Amino acid sequence: MSDAKFNLAVVGATGAVGQEILSVLERRNFPAASIKLLASERSAGKTIHFRGRDLTVEAVKPESFEGVDLAFFSAGATRSKEFIPFALRAGAIVVDNSSAFRMKEDVPLVVPEVNAADIEEQHGLIANPNCCAAILAVAIWPLHQKYKIKRITVSTYQSASGAGAKALEELQRQMQQIGEGKEPTAEVFPFPLAGNVFSHNTPVARNGYNDEENKLAQEIRKIFHAPEMEIIPTCIRVPVPRAHSESIVIDTELPIPPAEAKDLLASAPGLKIVDNDEAGHYPMPIEASGDLDVHVGRIRSAYPNSLALFVSGDQLLKGAAWNAVQIGEHLVNESRLTAV
Amino acid sequence: MSDAKFNLAVVGATGAVGQEILSVLERRNFPAASIKLLASERSAGKTIHFRGRDLTVEAVKPESFEGVDLAFFSAGATRSKEFIPFALRAGAIVVDNSSAFRMKEDVPLVVPEVNAADIEEQHGLIANPNCCAAILAVAIWPLHQKYKIKRITVSTYQSASGAGAKALEELQRQMQQIGEGKEPTAEVFPFPLAGNVFSHNTPVARNGYNDEENKLAQEIRKIFHAPEMEIIPTCIRVPVPRAHSESIVIDTELPIPPAEAKDLLASAPGLKIVDNDEAGHYPMPIEASGDLDVHVGRIRSAYPNSLALFVSGDQLLKGAAWNAVQIGEHLVNESRLTAV
Repeated sequence: MSDAKFNLAVVGATGAVGQEILSVLERRNFPAASIKLLASERSAGKTIHFRGRDLTVEAVKPESFEGVDLAFFSAGATRSKEFIPFALRAGAIVVDNSSAFRMKEDVPLVVPEVNAADIEEQHGLIANPNCCAAILAVAIWPLHQKYKIKRITVSTYQSASGAGAKALEELQRQMQQIGEGKEPTAEVFPFPLAGNVFSHNTPVARNGYNDEENKLAQEIRKIFHAPEMEIIPTCIRVPVPRAHSESIVIDTELPIPPAEAKDLLASAPGLKIVDNDEAGHYPMPIEASGDLDVHVGRIRSAYPNSLALFVSGDQLLKGAAWNAVQIGEHLVNESRLTAV
Repeated sequence: MSDAKFNLAVVGATGAVGQEILSVLERRNFPAASIKLLASERSAGKTIHFRGRDLTVEAVKPESFEGVDLAFFSAGATRSKEFIPFALRAGAIVVDNSSAFRMKEDVPLVVPEVNAADIEEQHGLIANPNCCAAILAVAIWPLHQKYKIKRITVSTYQSASGAGAKALEELQRQMQQIGEGKEPTAEVFPFPLAGNVFSHNTPVARNGYNDEENKLAQEIRKIFHAPEMEIIPTCIRVPVPRAHSESIVIDTELPIPPAEAKDLLASAPGLKIVDNDEAGHYPMPIEASGDLDVHVGRIRSAYPNSLALFVSGDQLLKGAAWNAVQIGEHLVNESRLTAV
């Protein structure tokens, strides 16, 4: 990285992903000259500790982006639609974690290990993908490059914190209730999550897939520049606090020997192979939590042109905050940002 | 059912499945003249309440099967191998819930909704399938009959009680530990299950699949009489007390319209359609627990010749005890048993 430093803003700084963005900026020693913490009116006035200082959260306003070089948005699609135009007009480059602009044609949707080159095409705005899409993309991209994926069949095991801090609290409370022999009660989710699994709590569209599944399929096709790729997703919530897991089967144009695939994944960026048959040790959300890398294992042949694997990745990190900061690092390294 | 009554034995009567067999025999008012409760030396002397009486558990011995017409074995593969020959020699018909004889050529492996006709081929011994196989078989057999399944891709969400009563207690204790802010400790399973998911705790064979996955694939091929069917299973444990769920994609020879498939499943035996998009209500283990039927939903088209669905079934009932008693009922109805 150069010695240049940048004026940053984090919109949604008090949310689950916003907090992780701040933590990753610290962990990566991101070259920040200043950082502005923005959130809703409700959260304004709160203080957040960042690099040894207490910073005060301000209410996000149209004029909040004066002098900002790089803004991370993670405050939901509605707020992104409302305030990103002001940030762009003020000259900031925006990395948006919401779904608002992901499928817009002139907005690159980026997983840096896959399509960092697309960042060059940006007109100020870069979209960060859905959590499951980012985790899936980084795990199978090296295989797609070599063996040409024709179809992905993926079933997810998604954690509570993917639905926000309140959903996580609800799961913790439900586990306590069950531990005390009580019936778990649900308010955030439509059904109890502790001791249960259920289809992802987004509406089902006319094609029979829920919004989470449709996002996953559409976003992978965009990130991979593979509009014809067949994707069959099933998105399921499981009573796990943090990190999403995915059971993946890919069908490829070329035969895909599992040992060769494993070697390829072992040397690919953003991945950690956890695939020890002797110890019975494979990817697990409790181990992937807090890790920037996606854990990959159970790599095995299905049929000559098919491969099965199981992955766990921290959906707040690679699935959100870390992927966004990676895009920021890329902008800094490629001097797409004007230094202070 | 006829008025004839039969002398029964339940081997493994104190285990998780044995208890469910007794409960299902009561629930179905099975025509029992007498019932002998057998278990290991360790459990001998315990009393179990059955149809208003307290029965004493006896230690299973070679001579335990004198006068027994029908014996349900659910005490593990080792005990099945040891004692089933004595039961057969004494003239009993045996329904074995263990994996000991499932793949033996002259032993029918039966899911009554699928291949009840195979019971006619028995030489005294009928095998009850693996829990995931039974749940999968009943859910997709009607589709195979009409559209000819070429490939099944299935990822499981398996509950703790599938590993026995001690595993269930461990999960309950771990939820309590998490509720109290403590680290969950694991003794029965190799890793904490509460707040986590992990690859099924059976050894991985040379083909890269674990024993549970290999059982699932081999048994479905045998039950369906479809030795060439491609099956790609991924078996995962989730922190659910009871009932297994499965995310299934089938590829068929014939085009499979989802509305037609749903109608077919709605009229098939052993299934309950839970597929309400408006209410966001789909199969869940907390609702399938205790139900003899397998719950089926999220029925949707993948591609013209593919269909995706999600099922939850009680693995102690349809996956074990209920399937075994169903086989018993079939024997009774077809007069394969000599009445008392």
